[in-house]
Amino acid sequence: MTMNRQWTLKRRPQGVPRDDDFELVEGQVPEPGEGEFVTRNLILSVDPAQRGWMDEGGNYFPPIPLGAPVSAGVIGEVIASRNPDFAIGERLYAVGSWSEYSLLGSGFVFRKLPAGGDIPLAKYNSLLGGMGCSALIALRDIGKPRAGETLFISGAAGNMGTLAGQIGKIFGCRVVGSAGTEEKCRYLENELSFDATLNYRTAGDLSAALKGVCPEGIDIYYDNVGGPMLEAVLDNIKLHARIVMNGSIAEYNDTEPRPGPRNLWNLLVKRAFIEGFLLPDFADKIDDALVLLEEWYREGRLDAREDVRTDFAHMPAVFRALFDGSNTGKLMVSLE
Amino acid sequence: MTMNRQWTLKRRPQGVPRDDDFELVEGQVPEPGEGEFVTRNLILSVDPAQRGWMDEGGNYFPPIPLGAPVSAGVIGEVIASRNPDFAIGERLYAVGSWSEYSLLGSGFVFRKLPAGGDIPLAKYNSLLGGMGCSALIALRDIGKPRAGETLFISGAAGNMGTLAGQIGKIFGCRVVGSAGTEEKCRYLENELSFDATLNYRTAGDLSAALKGVCPEGIDIYYDNVGGPMLEAVLDNIKLHARIVMNGSIAEYNDTEPRPGPRNLWNLLVKRAFIEGFLLPDFADKIDDALVLLEEWYREGRLDAREDVRTDFAHMPAVFRALFDGSNTGKLMVSLE
Repeated sequence: MTMNRQWTLKRRPQGVPRDDDFELVEGQVPEPGEGEFVTRNLILSVDPAQRGWMDEGGNYFPPIPLGAPVSAGVIGEVIASRNPDFAIGERLYAVGSWSEYSLLGSGFVFRKLPAGGDIPLAKYNSLLGGMGCSALIALRDIGKPRAGETLFISGAAGNMGTLAGQIGKIFGCRVVGSAGTEEKCRYLENELSFDATLNYRTAGDLSAALKGVCPEGIDIYYDNVGGPMLEAVLDNIKLHARIVMNGSIAEYNDTEPRPGPRNLWNLLVKRAFIEGFLLPDFADKIDDALVLLEEWYREGRLDAREDVRTDFAHMPAVFRALFDGSNTGKLMVSLE
Repeated sequence: MTMNRQWTLKRRPQGVPRDDDFELVEGQVPEPGEGEFVTRNLILSVDPAQRGWMDEGGNYFPPIPLGAPVSAGVIGEVIASRNPDFAIGERLYAVGSWSEYSLLGSGFVFRKLPAGGDIPLAKYNSLLGGMGCSALIALRDIGKPRAGETLFISGAAGNMGTLAGQIGKIFGCRVVGSAGTEEKCRYLENELSFDATLNYRTAGDLSAALKGVCPEGIDIYYDNVGGPMLEAVLDNIKLHARIVMNGSIAEYNDTEPRPGPRNLWNLLVKRAFIEGFLLPDFADKIDDALVLLEEWYREGRLDAREDVRTDFAHMPAVFRALFDGSNTGKLMVSLE
């Protein structure tokens, strides 16, 4: 009989998650009830946002209950179904968990994947899914980029950052990014045509360093990291700047909240704004976004790198790669 | 010969302005050049924003040069003119300075006052001018209030706060305000029909206290003060909350910038925004706003209190009243 291995949350992590915050448990593959279906998972996504779901307060998602499987984006194939909308053999992108098999209902499904497509499966996790839609919609509909404007992206070498940067170039922006190693900075400049980069680990005074790479100031800040970078950005914003807050990976593992920027006042001086973005608020724009993203991908104007691991047996270690910066591309685990 | 007395900025204030940061100087009444005109000033406005203009960095206005008259809103009457658009005897609201007479050009004029109107002059400074327009347009066009929503206002007993609160009630909001004395809180509740108030000096834990007066959370925060209140508000915002940043009087006299809120992250969790507001960005909405404000005023639905001083000889002391909370209504000095 096939068994289902699942990574569950054993204890709420303090700071960076440890191996023993999690437990690999084995159970039976679930049977679908009326309206439900079961997927064999092919790809498990590994994302910074999951860190927030592990805390008692949760974030925009409710917290993962202790003992429950760790919620995660998954790409799976339907192997059993009591839902007429989901046939055996169909593949889809859904909110499942770090599990070999998931029991799902329609409400958990982001999108079905096209049958027999020529695009690698991992690309639907890195680019042609929620990540790509978030990068496009947040930048376009909140950031409102105009050609010639300066777009600054923190966490620029992360998957979201590389997507936002490439899309910013498509919109005609001057694109500047920050990352934590020289290698990542060279990658952004040489492979992704970023106009300038900033290594935040070696930059010293972040505000002065930002002024160096954005001498005319910042029109749009695509914030993937939170933390001290926001203060430096606020020192350098132009009139009517737009700050899109996408995530705060610099702060996910803090056990005490850090003080915020000392210069929020600049929002008034520059009549600028900071706005939080989450994709579900823009559900009506996702279909069109996916079409556009695939078009750009096929034209060779937009791509993502994937860092596909295979060590399901060591998910906590894979997860930590997000926080020590050792992943190179969208992190995920393949079960194929 | 008539002389012109002017308060000039002698030294940039450190913290709360002192008497000897300013100097009262006497000179000749200026003569208008081509396109210019001279006003005899009837009312000099005394506003928190002027504190920012006294700093080396300025704020949204350039800094007042050392030795120059202290920039201020004035209501004046034209006494000499070489500009065909401004006739002797016309009264107007303009950016002048703490001076008995001002030399002005068209670019400094906010609006002409109606001839022979029945509205007291001071009302054009407190309500039917930039203050009223800011309260209305910031609340309506950035805050986007809907009936039944909770509007929280800091610095609620200040002129801007009382206007925003009354306008919030007109829009059907539940209006809650914070102020620094019990007397001010009673005034807001009893005279202006605020639904609840919070004395921030005695409240203890601001976040918990806010939860007490806004149990369902905050939809709109009209921020007149900056400082620690923003962190407490961010703890209590509802989904899609709007924070309008109008001023940071709590911080104007800081010599070192204070750390910002530790929970900006909530902007993401709640998909909320903070946006800075300044009236000049909404110049095309001012005429209509003034009509609406006067209509509400005449209907008895909206009013302002004025705190009209007459001691032009002691402007620095009058100015300090803004920061110790001893003014009761829109602060100004009459020269009539």
